[in-house]
Amino acid sequence: MTVALETSGFILGIEYVAIFCCAMVGGLSAVRKGYDITAILITAWLTALGGGIIRDVMLGVTPVGVSDKGLVLTALASGIAVALLHPEVDKLKWSMLTLDALAMALFAVNGTAKAMGLGASGMTAAFMGMFTALGGGLIRDTLINEVPMIIRDRHWYFVPAAVACVATVFVCKADFAGLINLQGEIGLDLAIVALAVAMRLLSVRFNIGVPGAV
Amino acid sequence: MTVALETSGFILGIEYVAIFCCAMVGGLSAVRKGYDITAILITAWLTALGGGIIRDVMLGVTPVGVSDKGLVLTALASGIAVALLHPEVDKLKWSMLTLDALAMALFAVNGTAKAMGLGASGMTAAFMGMFTALGGGLIRDTLINEVPMIIRDRHWYFVPAAVACVATVFVCKADFAGLINLQGEIGLDLAIVALAVAMRLLSVRFNIGVPGAV
Amino acid sequence: MTVALETSGFILGIEYVAIFCCAMVGGLSAVRKGYDITAILITAWLTALGGGIIRDVMLGVTPVGVSDKGLVLTALASGIAVALLHPEVDKLKWSMLTLDALAMALFAVNGTAKAMGLGASGMTAAFMGMFTALGGGLIRDTLINEVPMIIRDRHWYFVPAAVACVATVFVCKADFAGLINLQGEIGLDLAIVALAVAMRLLSVRFNIGVPGAV
Repeated sequence: MTVALETSGFILGIEYVAIFCCAMVGGLSAVRKGYDITAILITAWLTALGGGIIRDVMLGVTPVGVSDKGLVLTALASGIAVALLHPEVDKLKWSMLTLDALAMALFAVNGTAKAMGLGASGMTAAFMGMFTALGGGLIRDTLINEVPMIIRDRHWYFVPAAVACVATVFVCKADFAGLINLQGEIGLDLAIVALAVAMRLLSVRFNIGVPGAV
Repeated sequence: MTVALETSGFILGIEYVAIFCCAMVGGLSAVRKGYDITAILITAWLTALGGGIIRDVMLGVTPVGVSDKGLVLTALASGIAVALLHPEVDKLKWSMLTLDALAMALFAVNGTAKAMGLGASGMTAAFMGMFTALGGGLIRDTLINEVPMIIRDRHWYFVPAAVACVATVFVCKADFAGLINLQGEIGLDLAIVALAVAMRLLSVRFNIGVPGAV
Repeated sequence: MTVALETSGFILGIEYVAIFCCAMVGGLSAVRKGYDITAILITAWLTALGGGIIRDVMLGVTPVGVSDKGLVLTALASGIAVALLHPEVDKLKWSMLTLDALAMALFAVNGTAKAMGLGASGMTAAFMGMFTALGGGLIRDTLINEVPMIIRDRHWYFVPAAVACVATVFVCKADFAGLINLQGEIGLDLAIVALAVAMRLLSVRFNIGVPGAV
């Protein structure tokens, strides 16, 4: 039941940064609509941790988004930070995009690995990873009454998340079969994260979209 | 725990057709809004299987919408089909309406029967049936940011679903009490499906609405 | 696992009144949009009981909103009442606001106490109380495709609910530690309810808002 990427303090640190940033993206969308501080905090918290809440509810375990003090306080601190510093945050477009992509990729890998550890099948685990990676943004856009970004955004967003989840399923299966050790698993997981972040950023940078209906 | 209508290969086949069609209705709504292929696939999948996901989460079992390969692949195949063939699908208004009504009725009967089989009370099972039948459409309309059809549509949609769910509760109770055998249960279930489909289609054909507030 | 405020028949009566009123607020919002009677019933039911459904799903128990006949019938009766009497209900602005605040406060206290009784940690229980108090309104506004009131309303709504939930956690902990008896717990719970209602009403009366982003 160990999630490989959470055994290393360094990578756990990156995940807290990702949650902080993800909450910032969420809080910023509430700031832009002119909502008050409670709305900013709710949106920040649910954007960062709502995807994991959906995953945990489906897996039948207590959602970490309401039970892990460190995660909750990180998300709320991020909401307060964006309420105070939003003009600065607004300027960091590419930094935000990068951190948001990092959060998406880490959530996809960790969400999938958590589900595999709880005994889910490969397909179910991949779906759980996608809910973790994409669910928070979906809740955020529902809260502020917009079409969710995974529906609206024509750049690659769902695609890198799906690739990361499916790849993680294979890594977990290799681990269960004893084909790789913990170091190998961490290395492969990081490669998956890097791949997903690169796909997302290149797609935005070079305006590569997903085709629509014919 | 056996759902009567799923013991027969013939009726199981009808259910796959219903899921295919339900996903088509969902995918079509994303096509019409001009969204890309990932949005079409997500909408198709959640329209067809989202209601069952809500039911299974409430019943505390692993959602078949993320764990049953056959169901998931059927929904995704339907999303791809509608992305390729939507001008043809658009012409099939009455066929689509009929298949959508069939999906609603089958989901209501099977959702209720599944909950009864898991030991839910009659009222809880009826609600589970309604979530199965109506939840997918609700998620679809939330995703594309429209008022859900069960709220918006003045024709009978909720009413036939509710009738089918309540009738299925009585059929299941008769089965548990040993009053009817499997053949009898299948027969009664099919009669309920036919009744619900007829109510839905007649309501649209003759523009019969539900009264509003006085 | 006993929820203190539900041991007394008198307070249980108040809770039914609160649910009736909460459903009325929900039904009224569907009436105002011109939706039909099934939409009014669905909105009334989910506004009154949807928050508790979210809480129970997260806690992994059968949602009372689909299994408790008394609660469900109260919510549906309220929906029918508002469909028949909405011009009268519309005139009761302050009565409605008071009963809605009462419902929010009772839901916050009882939702938190229920989660504590099921062994949740203090923080998790406080979140469960907030989901109970605020989830119904969130579902209602999603159904009718508006920005949820907790996001939109600049008066205190989230704040009194949060205060009530956190205070209830301390009361429950004092009870578990044997510091207070049942009478003491009921007294403190009622004081919390009164405080939350007062905060909400004073905030609306004197137009006290929550600050936005700087």
